[in-house]
Parts: sequence; C-alpha cells; structure tokens
Amino acid sequence: MKKLTILGSTGSIGTQTLDVVANDPQAYEIHGLAAGSNIKLLIEQAKQFRPKAVCVAEKSLIDDIKPHLPIGTRVLYGEQGLIEIAAATDADTVVTAIVGSRGLSATLAAIEAGKNIGLANKETLVTAGHLVMKSAADKGVSILPIDSEHSAIFQCLNGENRAQVKRITLTASGGSFRDRTREELEGVTVAEALNHPNWSMGAKITIDSATMANKGLEVIEARWLFGLQYDEIDVLIHPESIIHSYVEFVDNSIVAQLGLPDMRVPIQYALTYPDRRPTPTESLDLAKLGSLRFREMDFDRYPCLRFAYESGRAGRSAPTVFNAANETAVARFLDGAITFLDIERVIEQVLSRHVIVDLPDVAAIAEVDAWARKEAATI
Amino acid sequence: MKKLTILGSTGSIGTQTLDVVANDPQAYEIHGLAAGSNIKLLIEQAKQFRPKAVCVAEKSLIDDIKPHLPIGTRVLYGEQGLIEIAAATDADTVVTAIVGSRGLSATLAAIEAGKNIGLANKETLVTAGHLVMKSAADKGVSILPIDSEHSAIFQCLNGENRAQVKRITLTASGGSFRDRTREELEGVTVAEALNHPNWSMGAKITIDSATMANKGLEVIEARWLFGLQYDEIDVLIHPESIIHSYVEFVDNSIVAQLGLPDMRVPIQYALTYPDRRPTPTESLDLAKLGSLRFREMDFDRYPCLRFAYESGRAGRSAPTVFNAANETAVARFLDGAITFLDIERVIEQVLSRHVIVDLPDVAAIAEVDAWARKEAATI
Repeated sequence: MKKLTILGSTGSIGTQTLDVVANDPQAYEIHGLAAGSNIKLLIEQAKQFRPKAVCVAEKSLIDDIKPHLPIGTRVLYGEQGLIEIAAATDADTVVTAIVGSRGLSATLAAIEAGKNIGLANKETLVTAGHLVMKSAADKGVSILPIDSEHSAIFQCLNGENRAQVKRITLTASGGSFRDRTREELEGVTVAEALNHPNWSMGAKITIDSATMANKGLEVIEARWLFGLQYDEIDVLIHPESIIHSYVEFVDNSIVAQLGLPDMRVPIQYALTYPDRRPTPTESLDLAKLGSLRFREMDFDRYPCLRFAYESGRAGRSAPTVFNAANETAVARFLDGAITFLDIERVIEQVLSRHVIVDLPDVAAIAEVDAWARKEAATI
Repeated sequence: MKKLTILGSTGSIGTQTLDVVANDPQAYEIHGLAAGSNIKLLIEQAKQFRPKAVCVAEKSLIDDIKPHLPIGTRVLYGEQGLIEIAAATDADTVVTAIVGSRGLSATLAAIEAGKNIGLANKETLVTAGHLVMKSAADKGVSILPIDSEHSAIFQCLNGENRAQVKRITLTASGGSFRDRTREELEGVTVAEALNHPNWSMGAKITIDSATMANKGLEVIEARWLFGLQYDEIDVLIHPESIIHSYVEFVDNSIVAQLGLPDMRVPIQYALTYPDRRPTPTESLDLAKLGSLRFREMDFDRYPCLRFAYESGRAGRSAPTVFNAANETAVARFLDGAITFLDIERVIEQVLSRHVIVDLPDVAAIAEVDAWARKEAATI
C-alpha cells in the first residue's frame, strides 16, 4: 500500500496520477491533494479518493470547498498549506505535479520530512538541483522522475553501473511547429501552438515543446537527476515520440525505453518502482507504426534549447533566470501580449542582463526568480 | 582477469571473440582454443594468445600443428578432446562458438565442471534446453547469451523482475531475400543467399537468416534462456537490424537494446557482464540513419519459422529434428545438391516422419539427430 500526496491534483499530471490510482485502488491510499483554484474538480477528487487533507491556492476558497468535502477532511491553503500537506501527512511519496517554480519549497519540505518524491515539476531541479539532490541524498529519499524522458532514462539505467554510461539522449518530438521554418513562425496563433502532435499536456508545457524550452529544462533536470555533464546529454528529434529516451554505455550498447505516448506509464512506474504493474494503457505495435524517424537537433531553429544549455553550463543562478523568464514569456504569449518568437527574445534579453549569483539558497533563488519575472514582464 | 576457453576459435564468433580479447589483453587469459581443420589460423591464434591447450578435429592433424605451437601447448583432438578442453582447464568461462549440434556434449561437460558459458551455439539449447538449463541451475553457473538478439533481451532484463515480463520480441532483418516474393525464390543461387544485408556471419547462419530458420532457432533458445512460453515470444521484421530485440513489461513499457550490427558488443558483454567496457566498435547515430522500419512477420513467406514454433510447442525431441533436418538441408544447398526452397520442404517432410521421444537424454538426442540427418540427406 503506497501512501500518496499529490501536489497539483487537478492538472494534467495530477489527474492522470489519480487515474493510475483508480485503476488499482487496493495499491494506494491518498493522504493529501493540493490544487489551485479548480475547486469543482478538487471536490470530486476528494469525494472519490477521500484524502485526509486538501489544499487550495487561497484562503478565500475555503468557504467554497469546505461544505462539499467528506467529514473530517482538513482544508489548508496557500504556500504554507502546500508545505504542510507536502511534509506533515503520513504519505510516503509526494507527487509534485505543480507547474512552474512554486513547487520548490514544498518539495524541499517533503524531502526534509523523509518522503520520496515523484517528480513531475521540472523547475524544482532546474532552479535548485544542487539543494534538492543534496537534501535527498542526506535524507536517503528517492527522487523518482515522472517525465516520460527521465523515466525512460531511469528505466534504462536499471541494474546498470552509472559509471559506465557514455551519454544519454533525450528525444524531442519537435512540438507543434516542427515542420515549419523559423520564418513561418512569425505570427503563429496560441491555438496553433497548443496543438501538440503526440502528447496531450498542459498549456505551458505544450508551448515549451514548440519552443524546445521544455527539452532545455529536461536537459538541466537530467544533469541533476543522473549526475551527468552537459556534454554527456544529447537531444535528438524523433517526431513519433515512441522512443522516449535512451542511454549509451561505454561499450556502444544503447538501451532505450519505448511506448505509446501516455504519461500514465511513467507516472505509475514512479509509484510502483522497482515493480511494474498493469496500466490502463495501450500496447505499442511497431509493425502497425511502420517506421520511426530521427533527425539532428537544430540549435538555430530552436534557440531556447541553446539558451538552456548555456544557462546550464553557466550554472548557479542562470537556470533560474532561464526558467523564470521562459515561464513569464509563455504566460504573456498565452495572454496574447507577445508573439511566439518574442518568447525566445525575452529569455535571451533577461539572461543577458543577469548577474550570476553563486550557490543560491532558496531565498536567493526566489529573489533571482522574482527579478527575472519582473524583467521578462516588461521586455 | 577472465580465464577463457573458446570452442570454435577460427569461426566467425571465435575470431571476433579473440578480437575483443586482443582489444583489452590485460583483462583476459586464454586457456583453450578449439578449432576444426583451419590449422593455419589456429597456429596464428596460438602464437598470439598462448593458450595452455588447443584442440583440432582429428588425430591426423596433430602432426601438422604440433611443430608450430609454443612449447608446452597441449594438443587435443576429436570429440573427446573437445570435452576435455571445455571442462578440464582452469578457464572460468567457456565460449561455445561451434556451429551445429556438435557442441552439446562439450557444453554440458563445461557446465558440469562449473564453468560459465558464453553461448553462441544455439543448437545446444534447441536440442537440449531441458538438460542444459537444469544442469546450469544445479551447478549455479551462468549461461550468458552471445547472439545479438538474446544479448539484447538479457541486457533489457537487467535489474528487472522477470515475473513482470509480458512478452519479448526478437527482431529479424529478413535476410538476403527479404524483398523477394516466394515465387522469386525459385532458383536463387548460393552466392545470392550468402549476401546478407547487415551482418557478416558464417555461411550456415547466413542461409538460416534467409530462410528464417535462424530466427526459429532463436525463438526456441529464448524459450529456455528466459523461461518463457512460446506465445510470449514474438518476431518482428526490422530491416536495419538496429533494434536488436526488446522486452515488453506488464505496464506496457518496452525496453530495447540498440546498436550498429557488430557481434563484438554482445560477445564482450557476455565476457564482462555485469560490467561494460569500451569495445573496438562504432557508435550508433540515429540521426544519420534517419529512420528505422518494421513490418509484421509473415509465416507463409517464411515457413521455416512456422516449423520452428511448431517444433518448439511440440517440444521433447521435435526441436532436435527441426535443427538436424535444417542443418543437413542447408549443407546440401551449399553443396549445390538441392534448391533454396528445398530446404523448407526437407524440414517439413522429416518433421512429419518423426515419432516424438519424451524427455530425451544426450544419447536419445544424438540418436534422433542422426536419424533426422539421415532422412534429410535422402529427401
């Protein structure tokens, strides 16, 4: 019996995590569910899964939710509530499925409380990889990746000696605009950008797929998760998203993880690791698919990926700036305030204005993050 | 330091095994080399690798080889010599790279003597899987596959719970005639059949690739190596031979092993397992390759594969008949005595005449084998 708390239960990863739980209800117990402002869905989830506590974004939402919850369900709110639900329940595993950099303090609190992390929030490692991995090592807890790419790498490393890894390759579908030239990206609409060819995901990550900023965040995340150097992390365009990523070993043998694009497989693997159990997903039929295609990553076509590698190599506070500038720019694009190509221009300019901070602690990360968002909001 | 004896040192797998050894000479010590009648190459190998003993096919060859060997090298011969070199040296691992069913007694003797087996001789498990796997389990020795497909499966199972395997898929290039219809197979020449598109291998196995008998032998071998049922073993045509095989787990996650076709990777893996060390091979570049193709296996196009599954399911002495009839028919085709399509006709007829023997021991296997060869020689 796995005892779970899910941060971001009403989002794309959160709902799919609960789908995995509902498919095998004897195997899980839900201790906490934290959502933002999608109260209607959170109430439904609370009725179905009977968590000990829920958390909402703001105090003002409490009155809306309280009367509809099972008797005895505690209601928490805000950043402090998020930290409490992450750290102070009996859950043994916390799934961090909040989008953006808000998840950091709660994740660190959960680790400090000795809980394993099912990590779907990539910004956690991007902004604070040095703190999170050290804390996890100190506390002896596992950081289990929920991203399809990192789960693939994690699966490929099963039973292997990590010192014998030569490089890893993260595959990228190329996103919604993969068949367009840079010129054809001028004036694309939000609706076009949200139309991802393979994966059904949240809006922010779908835009990040189209700019390749998502792959950039994954590269930085992989650096921390697997203890690699940046020149040991490659990126390859693979339009079908069937090979989710792979590891090359020193003997030139490659081990890859494959499957139809369905996040419930990596989600469940993080929950049942090292075991595997049936999932409510479809089996891959390569003959039916016919072929898999691959092409070299183009860093001129996708400058956001280049910025991510540069930020990662610069290290320290630079990835926080990359992430915060990107998050703000994407929000502005989704609001119609800037164009699609402005996203990369905003990131580039904010990065160029930043004075790097050495070994940032949580407070310094928050400060850099706030500064980058402010800059990104006005460019 | 790994102490090796190689049975079949002058063949394709044998020479590549010595290539692996020569690439990392500090890691290995050669205790025995057994060849057939390629005396010239065996002498060269003995001079370079200084084995304690060598073995040749017949007593009459001793005088030709003895004067050219380093002083103190023992010379053995014949079937008894093969058994002695397999079992009675200080080697910890015996690579069984002899083609055909001759390797069985020597392999069983090596297992009885507590030596790990680097298994390249697939007929060993096909004809006597029930004896070999039991003996290996009793003696606590490892059977490490050297075939690229089985090595792939073995690598994909690293760190996994075998009870959570749903099925495995062995990939097949389709062989030298993969783009021909059955009608276009009438009258093909030996030279055409020996022209394999991806792998450089011995003549027998190259013909077996074209008829798909090779994949059939691999299916039966996989049944024993990995303890699977026949309906858990699939075969898929993959012309590029880049995905060497893969495992699907109960969660619908697939783990695959990939690489350029080069036997030195699986050979070395069997020797260094569970470690990996650099190989003198090239790294795979999927972007350069561009695409990988797959198509359903066609059991009407490749009846030898169907016969293999049928023999495997019938079990007991049936796979021995399949193997011996195939070996004889291929030899006759290579000699120009029968046509390419006669190979499958011979196998089918010999199988149809066989009365199955239950739980055959080594003597019964040899008897069935001899009977099947005699039948196959006259059809």
